[in-house]
Amino acid sequence: MTTESLAFGDPDFTFSETLRAERGFVLADVDTRATPGYEGDKKSAAMDLVEGQTELSDLQERLWANGKDGDGPSVLLLVQGMDTSGKGGIMRHVVGATDPGGVKYTAFKAPTPEERAHDFLWRIDRALPDAGQLGVFDRSQYEDVLVVRVNELVPRSEWMRRYAQINAFERAALARGITVVKVMLHISSDEQKARLGERLDRPDKYYKYNPGDIAERARWDDYMEAYQAVLAKTSTKGAPWHVVPADRKWYARLAVQQLLLEHLRGLDLEWPAATFDVATEQERLAQT
Amino acid sequence: MTTESLAFGDPDFTFSETLRAERGFVLADVDTRATPGYEGDKKSAAMDLVEGQTELSDLQERLWANGKDGDGPSVLLLVQGMDTSGKGGIMRHVVGATDPGGVKYTAFKAPTPEERAHDFLWRIDRALPDAGQLGVFDRSQYEDVLVVRVNELVPRSEWMRRYAQINAFERAALARGITVVKVMLHISSDEQKARLGERLDRPDKYYKYNPGDIAERARWDDYMEAYQAVLAKTSTKGAPWHVVPADRKWYARLAVQQLLLEHLRGLDLEWPAATFDVATEQERLAQT
Repeated sequence: MTTESLAFGDPDFTFSETLRAERGFVLADVDTRATPGYEGDKKSAAMDLVEGQTELSDLQERLWANGKDGDGPSVLLLVQGMDTSGKGGIMRHVVGATDPGGVKYTAFKAPTPEERAHDFLWRIDRALPDAGQLGVFDRSQYEDVLVVRVNELVPRSEWMRRYAQINAFERAALARGITVVKVMLHISSDEQKARLGERLDRPDKYYKYNPGDIAERARWDDYMEAYQAVLAKTSTKGAPWHVVPADRKWYARLAVQQLLLEHLRGLDLEWPAATFDVATEQERLAQT
Repeated sequence: MTTESLAFGDPDFTFSETLRAERGFVLADVDTRATPGYEGDKKSAAMDLVEGQTELSDLQERLWANGKDGDGPSVLLLVQGMDTSGKGGIMRHVVGATDPGGVKYTAFKAPTPEERAHDFLWRIDRALPDAGQLGVFDRSQYEDVLVVRVNELVPRSEWMRRYAQINAFERAALARGITVVKVMLHISSDEQKARLGERLDRPDKYYKYNPGDIAERARWDDYMEAYQAVLAKTSTKGAPWHVVPADRKWYARLAVQQLLLEHLRGLDLEWPAATFDVATEQERLAQT
């Protein structure tokens, strides 16, 4: 990273560059409590988040407006992370600030019988955003090389092929005008333990707890190895991964919001020109 | 209405009762600029809206938590209104404050060939919320007795049958545990003219304008007649209509949010009990 000395607020700073998993990226080297590129604290981050919501709302409306005629770009925010890494909070605090009418949101769970009858990318393809939409994946095709790999749900030869299949799939999505923003929320094992503990301490959190979480937690190192493989094999030039240290929820939310903003800004979205003669329509309206 | 002297803030006041279309309701008698049950102004309404967002977010999470095991109640917010009546603003400012992970949002447009090959309620049924979800309909089955009736897209004998079909469909939905909150955003013809004019004056609004809007506008009286028929025939005890004067956007947003809140509160949603032994799980977690 060449931007280490820059921070949020500097004109040349971007979270995209700062958090991007480049060739040679080592997940184990990431400090999950760090706040790369952000010098403020929890309180200032909350204010920056609110400020970003207005711009996000505006840019999403521009994206939507440009998709009205059935073409135009779209954006896909894809969020992965271990249990308790804060995916739900991202949905509520980052995505929640957008217009639900322009969002295509999908939470991927264990595949249904219908989904299992198809290739693993079938359900992913159907969930891609259409022109003008902000697509959101809460988990994604990467579960098919994470939980599937760790628990050996398909033979090794099969999941090994999937990295290249995913890369080809994402290349095709990019070619269709979909900007893919891939985010891994990265917490430490200790932080997960604390968060699971909180779910067991608070009756309003019980519903989030699943006894199966402990068995998954026991495979932490296998999961980290599987994530490392994902980052090494699928952080492509067109659709790189961003690894967001997520032990501090306030940082993760701000960082993901800003990643989304940076990509939306990069589309240079102007309001689309009128597809009708404005003066004629004003005249027609006046006569009603 | 027996609650005319009460207003927002009084313990016995509800927007549900104040805005409900009861037997004998006459749409033409509604003052679209009025703010029934609200004595504040635009500024206080914006503050009340923000305050309501926190409770809405909390109640939606409780709803979601109760649906985790596959049953439990759900809520459907159904919004109808003429072009420019502010449906988009409701989506952004009221629904937008909820967790997109718990929302099932559908905007109903002219039916696709696949949808047309089925009964008119087929696509509606598929869009109903599952247990724990907040369903949102931006337009709905009522288009099939509004735009369809006004433009005679099917024979009279066919759309005449639909009111009873819709009532039966909604009864079935209620029986499945779906609370149906039906809202008509009601603006005046003059207000629509002003809002269409604004869309033609502002390049950032062009995308919302469609020359076909003028032809629809010319049928204003027919639409009001069709809406009156909807209110007379489908404002049932289990799923009544609420007519929200909507010339003042700030009032409409607050009123719809509060209608949603009142219905959610009415579900008396407690956090679900643990489906596991808490002490055992704490012990298991401690050993990891």
